[in-house]
Amino acid sequence: MARMPSDPRLLGTLSPVTPLDEEAMAEARQRQAQLTKPEGALGALEDASVVLCGIQRTCPPRSLQRAAVAVFAGDHGVHARGVTPWPQEVTASMIENFRAGGAAVNVLARQVGAEVFVVDMGVVGDVEPDDRVLDHKIRRGTSDLAAGPAMTRDEAAAGITHGADVADRLINAGHDCLLTGDMGIANTTASAALVAAFTGAEAAEVTGRGTGIDDPMHAHKIAVVQMALDRSEVTDDPVQTLASLGGFEHAGLVGFVLAAAAAQVPVVLDGLIAGAAALVVQAIEPAALGYCFAGHRSAEPGHRVALHHLGLRPLVDLDLRLGEGSGAALAFPIIEAAGATLREMATFDSAGVARK
Amino acid sequence: MARMPSDPRLLGTLSPVTPLDEEAMAEARQRQAQLTKPEGALGALEDASVVLCGIQRTCPPRSLQRAAVAVFAGDHGVHARGVTPWPQEVTASMIENFRAGGAAVNVLARQVGAEVFVVDMGVVGDVEPDDRVLDHKIRRGTSDLAAGPAMTRDEAAAGITHGADVADRLINAGHDCLLTGDMGIANTTASAALVAAFTGAEAAEVTGRGTGIDDPMHAHKIAVVQMALDRSEVTDDPVQTLASLGGFEHAGLVGFVLAAAAAQVPVVLDGLIAGAAALVVQAIEPAALGYCFAGHRSAEPGHRVALHHLGLRPLVDLDLRLGEGSGAALAFPIIEAAGATLREMATFDSAGVARK
Repeated sequence: MARMPSDPRLLGTLSPVTPLDEEAMAEARQRQAQLTKPEGALGALEDASVVLCGIQRTCPPRSLQRAAVAVFAGDHGVHARGVTPWPQEVTASMIENFRAGGAAVNVLARQVGAEVFVVDMGVVGDVEPDDRVLDHKIRRGTSDLAAGPAMTRDEAAAGITHGADVADRLINAGHDCLLTGDMGIANTTASAALVAAFTGAEAAEVTGRGTGIDDPMHAHKIAVVQMALDRSEVTDDPVQTLASLGGFEHAGLVGFVLAAAAAQVPVVLDGLIAGAAALVVQAIEPAALGYCFAGHRSAEPGHRVALHHLGLRPLVDLDLRLGEGSGAALAFPIIEAAGATLREMATFDSAGVARK
Repeated sequence: MARMPSDPRLLGTLSPVTPLDEEAMAEARQRQAQLTKPEGALGALEDASVVLCGIQRTCPPRSLQRAAVAVFAGDHGVHARGVTPWPQEVTASMIENFRAGGAAVNVLARQVGAEVFVVDMGVVGDVEPDDRVLDHKIRRGTSDLAAGPAMTRDEAAAGITHGADVADRLINAGHDCLLTGDMGIANTTASAALVAAFTGAEAAEVTGRGTGIDDPMHAHKIAVVQMALDRSEVTDDPVQTLASLGGFEHAGLVGFVLAAAAAQVPVVLDGLIAGAAALVVQAIEPAALGYCFAGHRSAEPGHRVALHHLGLRPLVDLDLRLGEGSGAALAFPIIEAAGATLREMATFDSAGVARK
């Protein structure tokens, strides 16, 4: 617990991110135009196939054989303000549900052949580590973001390096596509605050009903987010803003995405919590976003704002508002299918089909 | 060739459609509310799981183990009017591409474990039948729908019964989920005419760029659809309207959907061509729509109009405009995942997770 990174200022501890390979992307676009279909007829699937080639620096892209979902979990001091009807211990008991394989993300990941890992970034309760439940606990829950900074800057930086460690570990174990997941009662409140801070949107625009709250609690949640924004100092240091308003799981996700991008491995982002973390990534290293697919668009209003600011188009849009990585898992086969078109489809020449 | 059904008036030749099982659907809704997630947090996935239970008349639903895509192919007399830059022989040569496994639908179906069948409903060129390429040719291409009826009513009715035969054959062979596909140069023109006729929309609202045409050809295509609508008699016989404006593949798709619904097997509709056929189904037997999932929303404007009129929400929305069954294949794993949540997710009680 309360591990600190070797360099809490975050300088030099993370590997640099190389932009996507333009040559492989040009080759992918050219190949898509030769496949037996009207140009552009596969829409966003063609775009995804091009990005995949840019990430893997080759065309056609390799098949994604070993996807992993990492569910970053943490608790939030702001829970005490009554922004959700769910008790805080649900975070820890859902981790046991993930471990037992009974949560939505387990089911959806099994459907697509992805393995599920849980990362305890800062859960209040005790969490027993094992092969699939990784202990990276920074502290037992953040401080109340409406009263003061949720984390110290050093804690946020530590969280980032721990998230990067998780990505490196999964990639070294052979995982070739990383999906983000998240669990943490009250984490939509912290996410809304981050989205507002990084996009300039109003609290009311980005604060949704999370797991399902009534009108008075929703109004209160918006007021809490506004308090946090009013209290938080404006700074051009994204790690400071993350520390002020975010959660330990956001910090972990930031490092996870940065390290995957540095290793040239595709990342499938889940919903609002991942979107909020991706805004931090964008501010630290915009090139890392090139390695990200937006798995889905959640029903949370802040996610729409985040995706717009990130410039990412969601692959799935089914009004999910669960988190856990559920949307990323649903999107994964679409990305793999996109790559398969480049590997397996016939060209007009090879199939002897006339062109227009 | 030119087979006629035993009863070309279509009365008594098709099995009746039973409405979805309300009891199984109520059980599914109740079970979704007990699973370890906030109520409704899986959005449209929960709705799909409920429909699946209603179709299969049991909760949880059985896993869909053997999906089949049937690509209904036909040619169109209106091709001669220059509504597309693609030569008509592409329909037949794409069938060879399907047979060889090199088309988009082959690749996407392989990704999701679905088998691909082709049904020659009325291709101009010669098509060699085999185990996967079924000969149901009614005529070598329809007549020009702008000049007169595309088919006789008897031909349209024959097409419907042939499409039903295809569904029955696949279901008898053990397929438990049927996906629609289509192939036919100029078939977006016939589809636009059908959508306009069945929804009351204007030709310009529903006529798109199909495989990708320029402004002058698009304006001409709208004018051709308008000519067809002006020429076609208004009738309350949906088979007559289908005959007047549709294609042989539309007729086949109508019977395919009706027979699958009668056999209580889920159908995943592809894009505009399937949507146009589903409007005919809706007019013949609205209960059959209960068995249909809208696989995706295509980039074609007429498809948006059709889906709205059908009251179906698309599962995938990625600006595809290819047809073949590509959107249905991408959607299939989402439907299977929806069913899996009911089969595999823990409940609050079983997992010992506190409720709000």
